Amino acid sequence: MINMMKEALGRQLIIDAWGCKNLDNDDLVKNMLEESAKACHATLLSVHTHLFSPQGISGVAIIAESHISIHTWPEHSYAAIDIFTCGKEVEPYNAVGVIKRIFSPEKITLHEIKRGVPEDESENG
Amino acid sequence: MINMMKEALGRQLIIDAWGCKNLDNDDLVKNMLEESAKACHATLLSVHTHLFSPQGISGVAIIAESHISIHTWPEHSYAAIDIFTCGKEVEPYNAVGVIKRIFSPEKITLHEIKRGVPEDESENG
Repeated sequence: MINMMKEALGRQLIIDAWGCKNLDNDDLVKNMLEESAKACHATLLSVHTHLFSPQGISGVAIIAESHISIHTWPEHSYAAIDIFTCGKEVEPYNAVGVIKRIFSPEKITLHEIKRGVPEDESENG
Repeated sequence: MINMMKEALGRQLIIDAWGCKNLDNDDLVKNMLEESAKACHATLLSVHTHLFSPQGISGVAIIAESHISIHTWPEHSYAAIDIFTCGKEVEPYNAVGVIKRIFSPEKITLHEIKRGVPEDESENG
């Protein structure tokens, strides 16, 4: 019964960053997506951003290992970032250094969610 | 001290769907993204999908209210779906009916995360 830990199919790192700079800079948001993919050893497939009026940017990078997303609220100096990865070669936490360098957050919180954890069959076995 | 509940900037509905059909059908994955946006009363801005070899699809819809994402593992009949919204006009749970209709999951789990909850200042006030 030891080592019954189930492998998740994916890992989702939920990042909330407060006190950020540069949240209305499309080039820097794209840089964050591209450089985060690289830092995590992910394979970048495409990057899409949308600029809102009067402010705010949504951006998504599709990576071979799932996605990286960002939504910015410059009026609150806040960004919501997800690093969703699968596979053992990819390290989502490596994106945190990129986020700190580009947005200089005063505060950052990290929560990891496992996605696609097979149902525990141990109660039946 | 009553009604000190802080408003979140965003709501993220985390959906894990097991026992799904149609997970390798790009048209249906796009339909799910488009119809979920409509059902949630969100404004669709763009849809992007990527088909993997030998199987699996990643798809993202950028909506004016944040994003909808899906990653499918047909070999596990599993899909990881996020409905990330902001604003009071949008109802992310309305996507669940669309997901059930298109993928016919045998089991579906929902978890809601609040994003961008301002730090609680009540301890200082």
